[in-house]
Amino acid sequence: MLSYDGTDYHGWQVQAGAARTVQGTVLQAARHRFGADTRVTGASRTDAGVHALRQVASLATAARINAAGLRGALNADLPRDIRVLDASEAPAGFDARRAATGKRYVFLIDNGPVANPLLARYAWHIPQALDVAAMRRALAALRGRHDFGAFCAAPGREKNPVCDIRAVHVIRRKERLAVLLSADRYLHHMARNIVGSVVAVGRGARDAAWLSDVLKSRDRRQAGPTAPAQGLVLVRVMYPDLTS
Amino acid sequence: MLSYDGTDYHGWQVQAGAARTVQGTVLQAARHRFGADTRVTGASRTDAGVHALRQVASLATAARINAAGLRGALNADLPRDIRVLDASEAPAGFDARRAATGKRYVFLIDNGPVANPLLARYAWHIPQALDVAAMRRALAALRGRHDFGAFCAAPGREKNPVCDIRAVHVIRRKERLAVLLSADRYLHHMARNIVGSVVAVGRGARDAAWLSDVLKSRDRRQAGPTAPAQGLVLVRVMYPDLTS
Repeated sequence: MLSYDGTDYHGWQVQAGAARTVQGTVLQAARHRFGADTRVTGASRTDAGVHALRQVASLATAARINAAGLRGALNADLPRDIRVLDASEAPAGFDARRAATGKRYVFLIDNGPVANPLLARYAWHIPQALDVAAMRRALAALRGRHDFGAFCAAPGREKNPVCDIRAVHVIRRKERLAVLLSADRYLHHMARNIVGSVVAVGRGARDAAWLSDVLKSRDRRQAGPTAPAQGLVLVRVMYPDLTS
Repeated sequence: MLSYDGTDYHGWQVQAGAARTVQGTVLQAARHRFGADTRVTGASRTDAGVHALRQVASLATAARINAAGLRGALNADLPRDIRVLDASEAPAGFDARRAATGKRYVFLIDNGPVANPLLARYAWHIPQALDVAAMRRALAALRGRHDFGAFCAAPGREKNPVCDIRAVHVIRRKERLAVLLSADRYLHHMARNIVGSVVAVGRGARDAAWLSDVLKSRDRRQAGPTAPAQGLVLVRVMYPDLTS
């Protein structure tokens, strides 16, 4: 299990070219310790600038390694904005991405009149009043199994646009708002497109029923803008037999 | 009223040389708008790396300015890690530092086994178990008016080492600990030296009665180490007739 501040990374996934990614940084540390044939697979391919409190990654290597010592060994080499929280031995062939049955994200909104500098790396600042009750009404239409193509950045590229949103909540605490999303899987930019759209409802630019119409349209052009990456945090990955 | 992330600043106070300070940055923005004779005085001279949720500063200028437009005018010029929250007209001769009757600080401790990367800029990571009850017993001895010379980084330079600690609390929430301090005034590094010392108690290296002995000694060499700056946040400045 890993935590990271995604601010200075081009997302999780290793990319062609020299972009600094979280997976690439972890892979470099792991290969340094356990040899060049080591592989690292993350449960979620978080976007550039997205954070993780609890990303899960599987590490496969030909070297004989001790799960108990892995955390200390990798953290000694990793930069401070990536930390291994714990490690345990997995069944042979375990793949953190394929085995995951669900993921939870939290999106943080700084709703004060002036942006809080201590939240600037971790929240989307929206100075306008947001109607939380309307946001909740709108989001209720997204619960369950639906074709989420309208909230997908690259609708043509996804073979299966059906996702199951198991929970979606909006929590307000003084000037901070959190949107919690729990689903079996997510299309590209789906969490951020849902947040960007429901904020349009919160601002009063759209009414609560509009989000349901957007969903039914399956048309990306109907949805609101993509919310900025820095507000999104991966908080949990679910597996059938282990809680993590 | 101002908020800032102190990570990239050499503290509040303008210094000789080229060091980047919060006061210097605000002063530059204010002089750009209101002329070269503009002065800015902060209630607290926060140390390098210390943050503020609600610092209070007075701005004096010969220009005719409108308090209502000040926030927008300065925020347009200031970097994102400094924000003016609000501004209002003060009585003639008002000095934010001399008029202050008290200040509150919060010191955040990340007490998880591995440092949380999302708290790295704003907390002191202590992986060892901390005995919160012992910390509370130790801190109780500091309440009230005392000579705090033992917690002063430069005891010789302070004319008056007597401060009145009105409130001190330790709050635990899962793996996070907050030490809240409220006093009429603070000696140099006093808040961080108190936290560094009470953490020695929390770790079990010292017993709770030791902190009282340190206080009575008035000897800096008796106290614990200075806690790191990044955990400290100025949260409130008190005035006789205005809450801010």
